[in-house]
Amino acid sequence: MALHLPALVTVLALLLFVYSFLAVGKARVTYGVAAPATTGHAAFEVVYRVQMNTLEQLVLFLPALWLFSHYVSPLWAGLLGVVWLAGRVLYAVSYVKNPKNRGPGFIISFIASITLLLGSAVGMVMRMVAGV
Amino acid sequence: MALHLPALVTVLALLLFVYSFLAVGKARVTYGVAAPATTGHAAFEVVYRVQMNTLEQLVLFLPALWLFSHYVSPLWAGLLGVVWLAGRVLYAVSYVKNPKNRGPGFIISFIASITLLLGSAVGMVMRMVAGV
Amino acid sequence: MALHLPALVTVLALLLFVYSFLAVGKARVTYGVAAPATTGHAAFEVVYRVQMNTLEQLVLFLPALWLFSHYVSPLWAGLLGVVWLAGRVLYAVSYVKNPKNRGPGFIISFIASITLLLGSAVGMVMRMVAGV
Repeated sequence: MALHLPALVTVLALLLFVYSFLAVGKARVTYGVAAPATTGHAAFEVVYRVQMNTLEQLVLFLPALWLFSHYVSPLWAGLLGVVWLAGRVLYAVSYVKNPKNRGPGFIISFIASITLLLGSAVGMVMRMVAGV
Repeated sequence: MALHLPALVTVLALLLFVYSFLAVGKARVTYGVAAPATTGHAAFEVVYRVQMNTLEQLVLFLPALWLFSHYVSPLWAGLLGVVWLAGRVLYAVSYVKNPKNRGPGFIISFIASITLLLGSAVGMVMRMVAGV
Repeated sequence: MALHLPALVTVLALLLFVYSFLAVGKARVTYGVAAPATTGHAAFEVVYRVQMNTLEQLVLFLPALWLFSHYVSPLWAGLLGVVWLAGRVLYAVSYVKNPKNRGPGFIISFIASITLLLGSAVGMVMRMVAGV
C-alpha cells in the first residue's frame, strides 16, 4: 500500500516532463524554430531550457525517490516528492516569465532531491552497519 | 518469467540509445564538428537531435514500462514496449532522411509511452481503492 | 545485504551528476553566459558538455547496473559500477583540461556500461531457456 505514494509521484513527475516537451513542440511552431535547431528565438530557448532542466532533474529525482522509499520510508519519499513537484512547477512558471526568476523553484526541488539522496545514503549505511 | 519481457525491452531500448550516441561520435568526424560544439553542420545537428530525443523519450518510457509491469501486466508492458521500439526506429530513420518526416515515429512511441503511464495510474488507483 | 553495493554506486553516480550540473551553474557566472543560452564561451561549453554527457551515460548506466544485479550478480554489478565511476571522473577532469583528451575516460565507463548491459542480456536469456 505504502509504495503507491512514490509510484503516484513518479507518474505526476513524468506527466510534468511530458508537458515540458509538448510545450517545446508547440513553441517550435509559435516562434518559427524548425528542427533540428534549438536556438534562434529567445522565447523558444527558454521553453527548451525548461524541458532540458526538467529532464536533468528527473534523472536525479526518480532513483533518489525510490532508494529513499526502500531505505528510509515510502511515506516520507512521497511527501518529499510532492515538494519536488511543487518546486518544478514553480521553476517552469517563473523561468518562462523571466529566466532570472528560475532560482527559487530550482532550489526547492533540489533540496527535496538531495534530501532523498543523502537520506538514502544514511539509511543504507545504517543497514550495512547493522548487517542486514 | 513474465518480467523477462519488460527486461528484454529495456535492454533493446538501451542498445538503441547506445547506437544513437555512437552515431553522434561518428557524425562529429564525418561532418567536422569538434567537441564541445553541437552545432555547425545541419547533418550533424540532425544526428545529435535524434540522440537527444531518444534520451528524453527513454527517461519517460523506462519508468512507465516498469510501473505498468507492476500495476497492470508485464506481458502487455512488453508488447507496448515493442511498439515503442518500432516507433523510435522509424523516428530515427525518418529524421535523418528529412527532419519534417519525424512526426509519425515520434507519435507511435509517444502513444505507447502515454498508454503505459496512464494505464499505470489507473492500475494504481484501482489498488488504492481496493486497499491492497 | 548484497544489493547495498549497487545502491551505494547509484548514490555516488548521482552525486557525480549533481556535481556536474552545479559546475554548470558556477560556470554561467564565471564566464558570463546567462540562461537560457548554453553557448557563447568555449570554457562554459566544455563544462556544459561534461554535464550533458554525464546525464546521457547515467541514463544508460543505472538501468544496466540494476538489470545486471538482478540477472547476474549484485557484487559484480557494484564492482563494474566502481569502474564506471572512475571512468566518468577521468572523463570530466580530462575534458575540462582539453576536449581532445576526453576519449579514455569515456571508453572506460562505456565498456563498464556495455558489459553490464550485455551481461544482463546473457543472464536473462539463460533464465528464459531454463524456464525460470
